[in-house]
Amino acid sequence: MDFAEEFGPQNKLERSRAPFKRAKQTRFSRSSTKYLVIAPAYTMAHQCVVVLIMKERYFDDVKVGDRFKSEPLRVTEKEVIEFAHKFDPQMFHLSRKDAERTIFKGLIASGWHTAAMSMRLFVRTLNFAEGAIGLGVDELRWPNAVRPDDVLTVETEILEVRPSRSRPEHGIIRLRNVTTNQRGEVVQTMLASAMVPRRAP
Amino acid sequence: MDFAEEFGPQNKLERSRAPFKRAKQTRFSRSSTKYLVIAPAYTMAHQCVVVLIMKERYFDDVKVGDRFKSEPLRVTEKEVIEFAHKFDPQMFHLSRKDAERTIFKGLIASGWHTAAMSMRLFVRTLNFAEGAIGLGVDELRWPNAVRPDDVLTVETEILEVRPSRSRPEHGIIRLRNVTTNQRGEVVQTMLASAMVPRRAP
Repeated sequence: MDFAEEFGPQNKLERSRAPFKRAKQTRFSRSSTKYLVIAPAYTMAHQCVVVLIMKERYFDDVKVGDRFKSEPLRVTEKEVIEFAHKFDPQMFHLSRKDAERTIFKGLIASGWHTAAMSMRLFVRTLNFAEGAIGLGVDELRWPNAVRPDDVLTVETEILEVRPSRSRPEHGIIRLRNVTTNQRGEVVQTMLASAMVPRRAP
Repeated sequence: MDFAEEFGPQNKLERSRAPFKRAKQTRFSRSSTKYLVIAPAYTMAHQCVVVLIMKERYFDDVKVGDRFKSEPLRVTEKEVIEFAHKFDPQMFHLSRKDAERTIFKGLIASGWHTAAMSMRLFVRTLNFAEGAIGLGVDELRWPNAVRPDDVLTVETEILEVRPSRSRPEHGIIRLRNVTTNQRGEVVQTMLASAMVPRRAP
């Protein structure tokens, strides 16, 4: 599923530019996805706000080849610096001034911050009932730096699905997450395996 | 280098139990490690505080087989929940009460929080001049859950070292980081590649 295609542009800026009547439409997903759009919630001036109620997802709801796109997340300088102070105190993450003297020529987010922000977007998008339990991550790469005011989006592709051998009430999914910025540059890629709940039979 | 062996127990609790005279000793590293211990800094009641001034490390200072052990870091419930709210809003990370109903039977830290805390310990221990630029991570695993009040330590082993082909002033190191809790249980393992600065010739 392409989120944007399914529900129209989700970026706040794009939303405010979208035709007013878009928010008047009540759209139900025709595919197996679990989004239900309640619209119009309310409108104010030229802003249209769409309320999304996301149903919980189960192992049984995803299949190999399914694709999901998260909503966007804007990175702030304050958060980049806060994360660095707590977890990755290196000069290219800690202060704009010091970072200018590094090979990055400016402040960049810790790769672990990018990973954490990507997790947030993934969790909110897939929204597995009882949560997705991370089993492991492979080939975690940061091909481009993330900088303050970048807007990140995560695209998820389901690569494998199989029932759990040890926990019959769970299934294992293997997926690829690709995080891109507002220019479409890839800032993170990874493969992950997660254990997610199956529907009660 | 075994940090604890070299400088005595660094855990605050252990430190307070350590013989008073330990802090009176001024120890200089005999190996190639870059730690310089200035002691005694000051003592108060039964607490001995040792001030470590850590010199910066370069690519040229590490070789294959070198091992490093971080100081310990205590995980707090508040931090586990804060991180979850920001980055991994799932029920086993968000609230003690809800987490009790999950298969973990209690609150656990996000794997990305464990990764971030491990990064903090790694960065402080290795302390590369100008910082270590993460190129990628493989085989990131979380074999045991991290719970509030766990005390984490990271052990780093250098697996490969080679000059950078594209940046002659840098070198590439490949390393294994293993994070353990206070019972010696492994809570995270990973392989990582990082670009670090070489000494000026």
